[in-house]
Amino acid sequence: MKIISTPSELKNYLKEHKQSIGFVPTMGALHEGHITLIKKARAENELVVVSIFVNPTQFLQGEDLDKYPRRDEADKKICELSGVDVVFLPQAEDMYQKDEVSILAPKVRGYVLEGHSRPGHFSGVLTVVMKLLNIVNPSRAYFGKKDAQQLNLIKLMVEQMFMDVEIVAVDTVREKDGLALSSRNIYLSPQQRQDALKISESLYLASKLVSKKVWDVQEIKTQMRELLKPLDVEYVEILSRDFDNIKEVILGHTVILVEAKVGETRLLDNIWL
Amino acid sequence: MKIISTPSELKNYLKEHKQSIGFVPTMGALHEGHITLIKKARAENELVVVSIFVNPTQFLQGEDLDKYPRRDEADKKICELSGVDVVFLPQAEDMYQKDEVSILAPKVRGYVLEGHSRPGHFSGVLTVVMKLLNIVNPSRAYFGKKDAQQLNLIKLMVEQMFMDVEIVAVDTVREKDGLALSSRNIYLSPQQRQDALKISESLYLASKLVSKKVWDVQEIKTQMRELLKPLDVEYVEILSRDFDNIKEVILGHTVILVEAKVGETRLLDNIWL
Repeated sequence: MKIISTPSELKNYLKEHKQSIGFVPTMGALHEGHITLIKKARAENELVVVSIFVNPTQFLQGEDLDKYPRRDEADKKICELSGVDVVFLPQAEDMYQKDEVSILAPKVRGYVLEGHSRPGHFSGVLTVVMKLLNIVNPSRAYFGKKDAQQLNLIKLMVEQMFMDVEIVAVDTVREKDGLALSSRNIYLSPQQRQDALKISESLYLASKLVSKKVWDVQEIKTQMRELLKPLDVEYVEILSRDFDNIKEVILGHTVILVEAKVGETRLLDNIWL
Repeated sequence: MKIISTPSELKNYLKEHKQSIGFVPTMGALHEGHITLIKKARAENELVVVSIFVNPTQFLQGEDLDKYPRRDEADKKICELSGVDVVFLPQAEDMYQKDEVSILAPKVRGYVLEGHSRPGHFSGVLTVVMKLLNIVNPSRAYFGKKDAQQLNLIKLMVEQMFMDVEIVAVDTVREKDGLALSSRNIYLSPQQRQDALKISESLYLASKLVSKKVWDVQEIKTQMRELLKPLDVEYVEILSRDFDNIKEVILGHTVILVEAKVGETRLLDNIWL
């Protein structure tokens, strides 16, 4: 496995390898969710590139940039065991200059839900994803469905900017009790870990209601909010998979999203129905 | 010569032609300046693509978007005679959707000089150039030095976004009396056409001063402004070729820029020393 730390070195290395490239961009602190992305990339491409970069521009002032978990050595080991060919580990100064050209998230879809709680966050995400995609130039790039709005905006960027890459959406990986895997779960105390289960439970509740033919969005949201009461809920939303508002659930076209704070930790989850 | 009007059709067409591509993006109303770009592209590449698209996002409210000269038939003829292989003639709705991801020009370099007179203009330019470069995926793209700040920002974008294209800067073409060619020159009355010569004359004056070893930027600007007095000057600036402020001219590293309004017509010009 090759470790590369600068964009120009990675570009040169990949130029010599004219194979199909599967790319998994990460912020490190790899868990089973990331490994699922890597395995899928491994199965579908000749060369697999994983980037590990805690991107400063997607953190707002006062957010957890400095304490975001960093475990480069463990992450490299996980990559090696998962069959990754190249790990890209740049420094911020390799990725950003002063006074930069940047990507601006769409004025509506980039500033609702998570974009409302964290204004500017998605512009930072899209900027780094554009840079990484242009450096790696992959055939396919793999993103988890857990960050549903991020996934939606990346797909929009690729379409609107006419980029040549297939964005592959991969199902969320969960603990046995339902908690969606996240690098931020390590912040949770045992009690908070228990409280956090309300999030996935509220999504299972929604799913159960839909299976009983309750289609009304308001009705489902009300019951979810009831269950989520003990938590500091940022939003509960039921949208089309294009993130448009809907009044009734349509199977195969719906995403249900929850964001809640447990203690100081912001947790996201969603299901696609 | 092939005329193509949608991004997907152009992408598909170019995928079948694995040759080096030279690309000349234009807003139409082609003149000798554009033809110079096309000839250079023709000499350096196997396939030449010219786009003609009056990009709405780079015009501010109240600017001349609607009356910007449109001459598609004459332009196609010029392309054909200049040996162009493909003319790309999209409609705005092929290039833009609602609620878009866009490019934001750098907060300093994108909002000085022309960017100060026209706030947001360069974000629109960079957005359409990114789209066009991603659609055409050229080996080389050709831009005139007349729009020096635009050229500088496009180079920055390509570098900062790690894009794979060589940006080729082509010298400004002038009328015999010195007036830089521009699609907007047709707006000028005979008297304004005469007044507009002050702009290139002020640049020749600067060049003459430098040849006499006058290096001081303030001194040169003062003499230029004196000559430009009859015009409505927006700015006179002497910068490094990276658009940083300098106190003295350094040969091979300097650009001198003028923007002035003649009647209602905004004219740009510059020389590279």
